[in-house]
Amino acid sequence: MMRTRPLKVALLGCGVVGSEVARIMTTHADDLAARIGAPVELAGVAVRRPDKVREGIPAELITTDATALVKRGDLDVVVEVIGGIEPARTLITTAFEHGASVVSANKALLAQDGAALHAAAEAHGRDLYYEAAVAGAIPLIRPLRESLAGDKVNRVLGIVNGTTNFILDKMDTTGAGYQEALDEATALGYAEADPTADVEGFDAAAKAAILAGIAFHTRVRLDDVYREGMTEVTTADFASAKEMGCTIKLLAICERAEDGASVTARVHPAMIPLSHPLASVRGAYNAVFVESDASGQLMFYGPGAGGAPTASAVLGDLVAVCRNRLAGATGPGESAYAALPVSPMGEVVTRYHISLDVADKPGVLAQVATVFAEHGVSIDTVRQQGKDGEASLVVVTHRASDAALGGTVEALRKLDTVRGVASIMRVEGE
Amino acid sequence: MMRTRPLKVALLGCGVVGSEVARIMTTHADDLAARIGAPVELAGVAVRRPDKVREGIPAELITTDATALVKRGDLDVVVEVIGGIEPARTLITTAFEHGASVVSANKALLAQDGAALHAAAEAHGRDLYYEAAVAGAIPLIRPLRESLAGDKVNRVLGIVNGTTNFILDKMDTTGAGYQEALDEATALGYAEADPTADVEGFDAAAKAAILAGIAFHTRVRLDDVYREGMTEVTTADFASAKEMGCTIKLLAICERAEDGASVTARVHPAMIPLSHPLASVRGAYNAVFVESDASGQLMFYGPGAGGAPTASAVLGDLVAVCRNRLAGATGPGESAYAALPVSPMGEVVTRYHISLDVADKPGVLAQVATVFAEHGVSIDTVRQQGKDGEASLVVVTHRASDAALGGTVEALRKLDTVRGVASIMRVEGE
Repeated sequence: MMRTRPLKVALLGCGVVGSEVARIMTTHADDLAARIGAPVELAGVAVRRPDKVREGIPAELITTDATALVKRGDLDVVVEVIGGIEPARTLITTAFEHGASVVSANKALLAQDGAALHAAAEAHGRDLYYEAAVAGAIPLIRPLRESLAGDKVNRVLGIVNGTTNFILDKMDTTGAGYQEALDEATALGYAEADPTADVEGFDAAAKAAILAGIAFHTRVRLDDVYREGMTEVTTADFASAKEMGCTIKLLAICERAEDGASVTARVHPAMIPLSHPLASVRGAYNAVFVESDASGQLMFYGPGAGGAPTASAVLGDLVAVCRNRLAGATGPGESAYAALPVSPMGEVVTRYHISLDVADKPGVLAQVATVFAEHGVSIDTVRQQGKDGEASLVVVTHRASDAALGGTVEALRKLDTVRGVASIMRVEGE
Repeated sequence: MMRTRPLKVALLGCGVVGSEVARIMTTHADDLAARIGAPVELAGVAVRRPDKVREGIPAELITTDATALVKRGDLDVVVEVIGGIEPARTLITTAFEHGASVVSANKALLAQDGAALHAAAEAHGRDLYYEAAVAGAIPLIRPLRESLAGDKVNRVLGIVNGTTNFILDKMDTTGAGYQEALDEATALGYAEADPTADVEGFDAAAKAAILAGIAFHTRVRLDDVYREGMTEVTTADFASAKEMGCTIKLLAICERAEDGASVTARVHPAMIPLSHPLASVRGAYNAVFVESDASGQLMFYGPGAGGAPTASAVLGDLVAVCRNRLAGATGPGESAYAALPVSPMGEVVTRYHISLDVADKPGVLAQVATVFAEHGVSIDTVRQQGKDGEASLVVVTHRASDAALGGTVEALRKLDTVRGVASIMRVEGE
């Protein structure tokens, strides 16, 4: 039954993920052949440093000329695990032009240029799969693109960055401060020497753009995603969260507006109730919570990074793309038919937890409450705590727009009796 | 771009799930058409009671002759939501013979005759999809069949029956007994008037057979699945579990043996540590935990039943199958290439928590310990508790085969000093 001519696969990049992909393609060759219906052959591996020893990869397959590799014309699939925008973008479009389908793990590129890449794939009748780009090995892109294709997704709430979840979990469970928790994450290899992409939310924002696009059948670019890092989350914030029966997570949140006519995508730290399934996601794990009309609440949980999990996601895609090749078909392409407008952060509606340092004298609460009322932000609870002429005021609001909350805070800062705004944290998942 | 000739879909069964499928096909017609690339048309609905009012379904589509419907020859997809073995089996094979692909939610039929149905689909070059058969709307079958296709699954541990999870959760959180919790489940509509299929584990066993088959690329039939219900779980068991830092869940467990040469599938109540992600699955929710070589630990969580969630899973399959039709292709068929033997329960290796009622006199512990040793079952901890000449002995073992444990318990029962074996519970997920 099985076709004997092997499918030819080229690998662009041979770092942690790439070498694991190559290893499994070799060690599990029979397994993969049985699952695909034809053997797969590693036809070439493009690397930057050809002299590095790469166990299990025949030296004659190694090349530094990635462009020549993707132009060979006899490739069935190109696996891109270089990362970054260029040369990955040009290599992928060149691969399509020369007849190959593409499996990519490149979240930055997909978030920035997903539409153009999908168009190139479609123009040449080829597949573009990228399960590994979001939440590592967790099968998430495929369920959203396929299993929930008959449903209507209203919200995606995700912990999509393992580094920051490790840091926040550490702060929560040990009482460590941000720097101490970051140092431990670095020592254990969870954080890179320059942790900016993780802790400032850039990595999560790219994933939010991809998730929002798929969930809402709408093009959402990285620039459309509001982004706030988690470097300013303090132990005091965790204490406040505990008082609320909450913990703090860095969340990627993609929402359809209540009227259904627009969507938003954002990344920021937020309080979520301890009873929410996302609250118990520990360490460097990722989890994505999806709310839809028919399916209700779904959650996908697993390791968000690492060579082996990411390689597993790449291989799952590789099998699917190879099967499509054999069938002479392609899988689902870009689905952007809904084309909903992406609203700015000011139009996001949620609840807020605000800590104010105020003068400890009569009338302060009335003043503060008036400012909230003037901006149309309704207060749910207020807690007042006084000591030595200084006091703190903790206000939790009902749902209000981010613009209204911003106006409120600006006005509060101008009050003589408000010495400072200690923290503003959104409250999600209720 | 869009093809205008609609794809024709027939619906077999129009109960809770079927009517919801019909409703969404009508109300979300444009959406579905955009996702598929062609409109879908409801071509006929086979029902048992034609006189029942069915809102939104034109009367001329209703028929009691399901056989004639699937024999029409112009159908693209048949959606089977009748349940049970016959006439569902014959209708599905007839549908294949007359050129239609099939989407089914029928776990009993798939567990019993999955291999024959897959063979019929393949013989006619058609698709058989059944996401809704296991864990309702949770996208699980598709990730296992496709996303993890390049990975090696070693264990699947699942809460796949919402009724029993509701009952056990109630017993755990309120201290209610089994009957009281069952009564509440019945009152709330979570349990059927005759709850046997749920509480005796038949429903979960069918799902375990399907999951094991997909996870291990091996045919696993319902008869291969060891099954124990949860009607004998007591409040005392929950107290014991708490002392162990555990809770009790009815688990479907599919495992590859340590040597990789065989697999097992079983359903029974078991203690799992509170720190395990499955321990916090509340109420009627389902969750399936998958352990694989490359992906590590993944969990899929969501509503396991209900008309809307199940309909959502059916529609996701419908979209995929329709897309395959348009592409002239089929999705992944049965993958049973590994063809591993399914071992009997006696070969399962796990840990055990055993409560014994014993005489409160010197030497009893030594006698009991000797019996364990003679059967090669190593003891991890023993806790002795005495009162009024009677005592209880709680033994937690290291990993041992079910056969060895069975022999141990048989021998224990023969000891004069052992008045009775109060409970035996497996300990999983460690």
